[in-house]
Amino acid sequence: MKRKTFGPVTSQHVAQLAGVSQSAVSRTFTPGASISPATREKVLKAAREIGYRPNAIARSLNTARSRIVGVVMSYFDNQFYPQVLEALAQQLDELNYHLLLFVGDRDGNVDRIFDQIMQYRVDGIVLASVSLSLELSEECLAAGIPVVLFNRSEETGIASSVNTDNVAASRQIAEFLLAGEHKRFAYMAGVADSSVNLARQQGFVSALEAKGVQDIRVVQGDYDAQKTARAAQELFSSSAPPDAIFAANDHMALTVMDVARYEFGLRIPEDVSVIGYDDTGASGWPSYALTSASQPVTAMVTATVALLMKQIESENIEPEQVVVTGALIVRHSARRPHFGVVEKEGLSLFQPQEVE
Amino acid sequence: MKRKTFGPVTSQHVAQLAGVSQSAVSRTFTPGASISPATREKVLKAAREIGYRPNAIARSLNTARSRIVGVVMSYFDNQFYPQVLEALAQQLDELNYHLLLFVGDRDGNVDRIFDQIMQYRVDGIVLASVSLSLELSEECLAAGIPVVLFNRSEETGIASSVNTDNVAASRQIAEFLLAGEHKRFAYMAGVADSSVNLARQQGFVSALEAKGVQDIRVVQGDYDAQKTARAAQELFSSSAPPDAIFAANDHMALTVMDVARYEFGLRIPEDVSVIGYDDTGASGWPSYALTSASQPVTAMVTATVALLMKQIESENIEPEQVVVTGALIVRHSARRPHFGVVEKEGLSLFQPQEVE
Repeated sequence: MKRKTFGPVTSQHVAQLAGVSQSAVSRTFTPGASISPATREKVLKAAREIGYRPNAIARSLNTARSRIVGVVMSYFDNQFYPQVLEALAQQLDELNYHLLLFVGDRDGNVDRIFDQIMQYRVDGIVLASVSLSLELSEECLAAGIPVVLFNRSEETGIASSVNTDNVAASRQIAEFLLAGEHKRFAYMAGVADSSVNLARQQGFVSALEAKGVQDIRVVQGDYDAQKTARAAQELFSSSAPPDAIFAANDHMALTVMDVARYEFGLRIPEDVSVIGYDDTGASGWPSYALTSASQPVTAMVTATVALLMKQIESENIEPEQVVVTGALIVRHSARRPHFGVVEKEGLSLFQPQEVE
Repeated sequence: MKRKTFGPVTSQHVAQLAGVSQSAVSRTFTPGASISPATREKVLKAAREIGYRPNAIARSLNTARSRIVGVVMSYFDNQFYPQVLEALAQQLDELNYHLLLFVGDRDGNVDRIFDQIMQYRVDGIVLASVSLSLELSEECLAAGIPVVLFNRSEETGIASSVNTDNVAASRQIAEFLLAGEHKRFAYMAGVADSSVNLARQQGFVSALEAKGVQDIRVVQGDYDAQKTARAAQELFSSSAPPDAIFAANDHMALTVMDVARYEFGLRIPEDVSVIGYDDTGASGWPSYALTSASQPVTAMVTATVALLMKQIESENIEPEQVVVTGALIVRHSARRPHFGVVEKEGLSLFQPQEVE
């Protein structure tokens, strides 16, 4: 994907390239204005090609903001996302902004969502949905709408993003499991090409390989409870089932635990250790007591709102990649190593570097 | 609370009562129009007093709708609400409407939320928050905005609402527990004055009393995990702890189960039966296998959207109270009676009337 140049491109350039009038360009980017779909299509294509951003013009015409931030989200069954949505709505509310919700299409129908977003004069967009992130963020940026990717990133770095350090945290999970003397490792993957899944898999696998572990099983849960249950059944039915499983998020980890206990009669952590990523509400429930890499929702949302506001206030959209620091929260779903677990503010954390 | 009369009240009446010009009334109800806060306050007060609804006028001036539905919601940690939010967003999306989210203030700051809602030209409102429902729905209706109360109702019947039959379902839970030969009953109450809590408590208690049960303990969980844990500790610490607990929602029931098992070493259902209300995602997880009265999210949301659209299309807001039929989903958190449990489409339901 080629990086766009955001020079001083004007609506005249766009009109020229698209072969339409300057007024057609203006109407394309004026919410509610009349424009034929074919012309609009030409203008958007040209605007994308030369990286035209109409927001400065639009703002000079429209001093009043809509005070609406669009949020594209899916996976409401994963408790992490409702937590994020609530925190985002509350923090935006304090700034007198509100949140217009678009439910992400897991099949990745970008055009439809983009058209919906363009119907409303949103001041910014938070993309917290997997498959849409790349194309949709480019479309929005090309249309002059500030974008922040939440819990995902794109290679080009064209859009701002907020994440935890997925590679480092997943490496730490590998070290924790190695220190707990596990032997047979498995990774329950999320949607294969999602940025966080790639980073978590890479961190986990590379840290194990660096310690000489060769045979790491990778199965696909795709962030989906049913697929995860089937993949877990496959793992536990094998001749040498894993004694350590890292699931790319808590939502899948909880399913893995239920399958292990209730379908295979396995004890956790005596027979198999399970670790997740997110540290969502249910992970702390005593029925699960899941060891998990935390994603601090409040800090991540604070960073997201700050990035959005900076972009909304400014004429320029300078992408920034924010990394929020989490921790490995140690509970009882994985065997504890003999070193490295420290107690802090009522939580047990894995911080071997502080003990050595 | 006195019932408003929705006669043919005009903006002239409002202007007269408020002592302002008719144009001031019009500007108060025109989004984005200039109006001083003091004048606006006078107009809103007068409009509320005489039940003025500007929507007919506003619509004749503004043929274009905002295509925004405001949703006031809280309790995101209770999985039921994110499920509702997702379904609502998807169903509205199909009608090319989208959802602007307001996080309900549990302390019930109505004015602030109302002012925020008025900032946006929403076409309708769904109120799914406990403490705000009564006053807020009156304010919105007085301002001419269609309102649907979701999973709550108000005594006056002034606003439309969608609920399951809370009284009947809770009566059935009492019958199920009586049929299971339980002896000592407790009710884990939600927020004391919320409409669904009152209905569930009334249905449960009256059905038990009708069968001669006198001593029914009622403790307050207030829909809050920490308060619920403390109330459960109180119940299980007593000299004659209950052997049957009905919690006013699943979110509290799951907490009761965790406290029973992990703090008191009780077996479920051998030592104590627990039943919830909602049938949310986690209730079906094998770690809980909670017996619960279902609230069919899709059917409830379909009814909500239908009510909203009918009101948005029409000039008149005729309140309707829709009751959606649920079922008692029988899993393993409560002792099963020897009769009345039938298997349907992979689920076990309590339907004694069909067996007798």
